[in-house]
Amino acid sequence: MNNKDSNISDLYVTLLHYPVINREGNIIISAVTNLDIHDISRACRTYGVKRFFIVTPDKEQQKISKEILDYWIYGKGGQLNPDRKEALQLVEIKSDIDSVRNEILKKTSKIPLVIATSAGYKGQVISCQNLKRDFLFNKNNKRPLILTFGTAFGLHESVYKNVDMILEPIKGSTTYNHLSVRCAVAIYLDRLLS
Amino acid sequence: MNNKDSNISDLYVTLLHYPVINREGNIIISAVTNLDIHDISRACRTYGVKRFFIVTPDKEQQKISKEILDYWIYGKGGQLNPDRKEALQLVEIKSDIDSVRNEILKKTSKIPLVIATSAGYKGQVISCQNLKRDFLFNKNNKRPLILTFGTAFGLHESVYKNVDMILEPIKGSTTYNHLSVRCAVAIYLDRLLS
Repeated sequence: MNNKDSNISDLYVTLLHYPVINREGNIIISAVTNLDIHDISRACRTYGVKRFFIVTPDKEQQKISKEILDYWIYGKGGQLNPDRKEALQLVEIKSDIDSVRNEILKKTSKIPLVIATSAGYKGQVISCQNLKRDFLFNKNNKRPLILTFGTAFGLHESVYKNVDMILEPIKGSTTYNHLSVRCAVAIYLDRLLS
Repeated sequence: MNNKDSNISDLYVTLLHYPVINREGNIIISAVTNLDIHDISRACRTYGVKRFFIVTPDKEQQKISKEILDYWIYGKGGQLNPDRKEALQLVEIKSDIDSVRNEILKKTSKIPLVIATSAGYKGQVISCQNLKRDFLFNKNNKRPLILTFGTAFGLHESVYKNVDMILEPIKGSTTYNHLSVRCAVAIYLDRLLS
């Protein structure tokens, strides 16, 4: 992963397709978006993220995601575009956030900290600056970090009750806060790791 | 545009589909990508960018782009999703970078400065920090700024000869530098304007 800084804690990114909400605030399973896989894995690869987990409990969606990955890792896609292959090799498909947590625990023997993101969360949040200082670049923190993003209209409120921290929303220079999840991931990774 | 800071210079974003290069380094006209329009206009709206210009000399591509915009500004898309409409209202379609330059000159009576971006430019570049200090947040700078991005495998070298400045490439925490243009725009806007 050739991170410039070896004192950095391991960072993982998770994209949830359930439980997320639709325009009306109802809980849904969203569909996996091809460009989310590509854009986010490329951003993860750029910033030295360890793995990028795509989370959906839907078996059909898992199958489609697997086919996309196979094309770019083992098929024509990867032959034509090795850079893309390199990024997509970071991707893993999981059924739920607990499976992500358990996989990291199993691989690292460390219990990861789960950090949710939100475009408009009103409760207590941690700033990017403090997350860097106290966890990401803190040698005393031995726990890997999982940065968690929602698709559709965002993470369902139940997710926020089961995480260790919630990261401050991205504020631009206006009151408009409707970034795509692809752009939000890129901005957070740049703020935390550049 | 409710910018927090009224002392900021006007910033425009331009996405070029010609002249850009393909994998082999040959000059091409790339196709307009629906998600580029959406993601980049949303990022532009978030960070108070004045206009987002989509540049292609291809009449058919201009027509397709116009249809997408119409759907989201005047059609069902905008009715269902007013936030998306608000972002897409920033978009304008132009044939070339000179038309962008002339339009801004006509509207503001100021000659804009054109700033190219690149993932791997090796010549002299300006840092984001200096662009902010010397131009974007410098009251003595009266000239609007046009931040210019390339699609496909990047801007053709001829573009770099006709710009005022070239912005430093985005470096993550690894040597991998293959971000999507959508993510690159978001990161630059965050670095410059957050």
